[in-house]
Amino acid sequence: MTTPTPLSGFPEWLPGQRIIEQQIVERIRRTFELHGFAPLETRAVEPLDQLLRQGETSKEVYVLRRLQADAEDPSDAGLGLHFDLTVPFARYVLEHAGKLQFPFRRYQIQPAWRGERPQEGRYREFTQADIDVVDRDDLPLHHDVEVVLAAADALAGLPVPPVRIRTNNRKVCEGFYRGLGIDDPAAALRAVDKLDKVGPDGGVRLLTETAGATEAQAKACLSLGEINAPDAAFVERVRALGVNDPLLDEGLAELTAVVEGVAAHVPDVVVADLSIARGLDYYTGTVFEIALPGFGLAIGGGGRYDNLASAGTDRYPGVGISIGVTRLLGVLFARDALTVSRPVPTCVLVAVPDEASRPGCDRVATALRRRGIATEVSPSAAKFGKQIRYADRRGIPYVWFPGAGDAGDEVKDIRSGDQMAADAATWSPPEADLHPVVAGSGG
Amino acid sequence: MTTPTPLSGFPEWLPGQRIIEQQIVERIRRTFELHGFAPLETRAVEPLDQLLRQGETSKEVYVLRRLQADAEDPSDAGLGLHFDLTVPFARYVLEHAGKLQFPFRRYQIQPAWRGERPQEGRYREFTQADIDVVDRDDLPLHHDVEVVLAAADALAGLPVPPVRIRTNNRKVCEGFYRGLGIDDPAAALRAVDKLDKVGPDGGVRLLTETAGATEAQAKACLSLGEINAPDAAFVERVRALGVNDPLLDEGLAELTAVVEGVAAHVPDVVVADLSIARGLDYYTGTVFEIALPGFGLAIGGGGRYDNLASAGTDRYPGVGISIGVTRLLGVLFARDALTVSRPVPTCVLVAVPDEASRPGCDRVATALRRRGIATEVSPSAAKFGKQIRYADRRGIPYVWFPGAGDAGDEVKDIRSGDQMAADAATWSPPEADLHPVVAGSGG
Repeated sequence: MTTPTPLSGFPEWLPGQRIIEQQIVERIRRTFELHGFAPLETRAVEPLDQLLRQGETSKEVYVLRRLQADAEDPSDAGLGLHFDLTVPFARYVLEHAGKLQFPFRRYQIQPAWRGERPQEGRYREFTQADIDVVDRDDLPLHHDVEVVLAAADALAGLPVPPVRIRTNNRKVCEGFYRGLGIDDPAAALRAVDKLDKVGPDGGVRLLTETAGATEAQAKACLSLGEINAPDAAFVERVRALGVNDPLLDEGLAELTAVVEGVAAHVPDVVVADLSIARGLDYYTGTVFEIALPGFGLAIGGGGRYDNLASAGTDRYPGVGISIGVTRLLGVLFARDALTVSRPVPTCVLVAVPDEASRPGCDRVATALRRRGIATEVSPSAAKFGKQIRYADRRGIPYVWFPGAGDAGDEVKDIRSGDQMAADAATWSPPEADLHPVVAGSGG
Repeated sequence: MTTPTPLSGFPEWLPGQRIIEQQIVERIRRTFELHGFAPLETRAVEPLDQLLRQGETSKEVYVLRRLQADAEDPSDAGLGLHFDLTVPFARYVLEHAGKLQFPFRRYQIQPAWRGERPQEGRYREFTQADIDVVDRDDLPLHHDVEVVLAAADALAGLPVPPVRIRTNNRKVCEGFYRGLGIDDPAAALRAVDKLDKVGPDGGVRLLTETAGATEAQAKACLSLGEINAPDAAFVERVRALGVNDPLLDEGLAELTAVVEGVAAHVPDVVVADLSIARGLDYYTGTVFEIALPGFGLAIGGGGRYDNLASAGTDRYPGVGISIGVTRLLGVLFARDALTVSRPVPTCVLVAVPDEASRPGCDRVATALRRRGIATEVSPSAAKFGKQIRYADRRGIPYVWFPGAGDAGDEVKDIRSGDQMAADAATWSPPEADLHPVVAGSGG
């Protein structure tokens, strides 16, 4: 076969980058658990009718087919890969409701797939780290605050630039559009969500063509989207636009509570931004977008979905937020903004004097591993200089020489060249050398 | 919508089971890192021509198609989900060879997909935990021993019954078949691999029909498969069958070295078992099967593949072993053989006296989390009795009452009923309560 080439939109990391990803995911996971979210995974596939309930994203779904389809066994026909972790989670809650305790809190860190055209920050396969809370019948608004605080805490624990969580509320937009007299507020929201791509003139055109807005109404929609504030000051500016509607009032009250609720615990993280629409149709109230200021990309988002998990008279409103792990890493890797001290877990290489001594070298490695020191045994009994160069090329800081000294074994720090007597039953490296260390390089 | 139902072959765990899975995966991961294997992940998809190089598994591949296929952008046409982690790893090595250090050692814990008929222990989506070592041009046999020792160490660290690693060598079988005079040793190997399903008579029939064997030759093949031993005693029994071939000699020497190499470090783990064939065509020497004695199922396998990762004159022989995480858990969950002390990470629930006090309760939670204690704040300011019952239902061992005592806060162990004064800046639970504890129940 010929040398394979990368697949556009399906990123793969080199070993050092993968260690960075793993440590980042691990820290996110730990923070989510500290906030009382339980781990959960769902299968990668959902029936297409589940995936297509949302409309707009249908074009991006990857459908599965068995290469040699089995007409006698249609049980895996009509399946597609999930495009986010919220739709599968809502399905999971409905399916297992009888065995869950509510409010049910879970985090979920898994890949998702979308058949989009690849571009910077847009992948066809990408890992997301989500938290959500769902309850039966009603879910108090303080959970909208809670998921932001947990996500902000998780992100603050990473070696990445500070984030901003831009927050809006669908009720503000829909209430405002309704109060303006626009016939189809949902279509208006979809048009406003495209403003980034089509610009203000294109936005006015979309609003008049798809949502039945007059030009004056369309311009008022754009004015609403220009409002943002780090505190409740946005309310007055919305009021100044002179639109009245009960849903608008409800949305403004909710958005104020979320912005003030977060600001009471962490400053400078949340900002009310009335341009935020979010592409997914299932949101019904609060919506979030996690921005990485200076990088021009959202690296996450989320919101409140009151109707996603419903079956018959059972209703499970939820709220959640998602950190786009692959997107975050992709943008930082492209700027060399994350470093790792070595691309292997190995701390010690046990040198092998000759192949007959390999079992003894293996026993040294076992003794070191038992005390939590990642160790491998040299792949060959080459000259010691060559074995040291092998360790050096792989970034392994220590080489162990069994029986090298008068008193027994010796260990060399190959960075400094220092070599000293050592006993595999007691020697430990400095804490900083035990594991690969990930850091932001500020690059 | 109606209540969703499970998809056959796509298992999903309940929250407590998922905590067990996560801790098991975490322990496997740590052991693999202690042995100097670096983490790696590959994308879920491969071009079909990569996946179909192996022949037999082609019928099981899930092919992807975009729901609204884009004729202008065929870049994601002809992709399928990987059915193991070895084929993608071999492709990764070829693709990134210029950026890797050899021998390259990695572990990989990810799902794989096969469109097989579901049955006990056979899933359509399943997680595997693999380690592999590949080198350029040649890979010494001691790595075959190394991967068994690392996998055995990983499995010994789990609360699961002791495993047996049944080992064979393709060269023994192929050399033996060749020495017998069978025309198509590869076909003979495939026939022998089906013995489990077809029985001895069916095996003789398959061998005569598909591999061109005489009945006497077929019976000799079956006799070879009946040989097993925990040490090198198998060699004499093979020799007693009176077949001679240089490849057989090579295989017997390799198999002896692997069995004795492992036994020198861990007793009672490895056994030479000449019935082991393994279904995948890419193995060229050592093959492994991880058995869970008493459960009647293999929970992993692996082997040596000298030709899988080759492009032009570049050749990267490899050896690896795979733990079937989903299969292991499936069989143990079905027998209630694993338990967890609670199905949530949460150690403390902070009670909320009234909604106006929620921000103060959030601050208590923040203080506890900062010291690594997983904490959540009560979802409602209900009567304390109801809040305690909420904690009890979820398995949370402690409830914190802000300002409940004369001296400040109090904390209650809701299992014993003991309540005492506590300061969120200093209080810690006993170590055993800090995280959910997973154990084997011996069931």
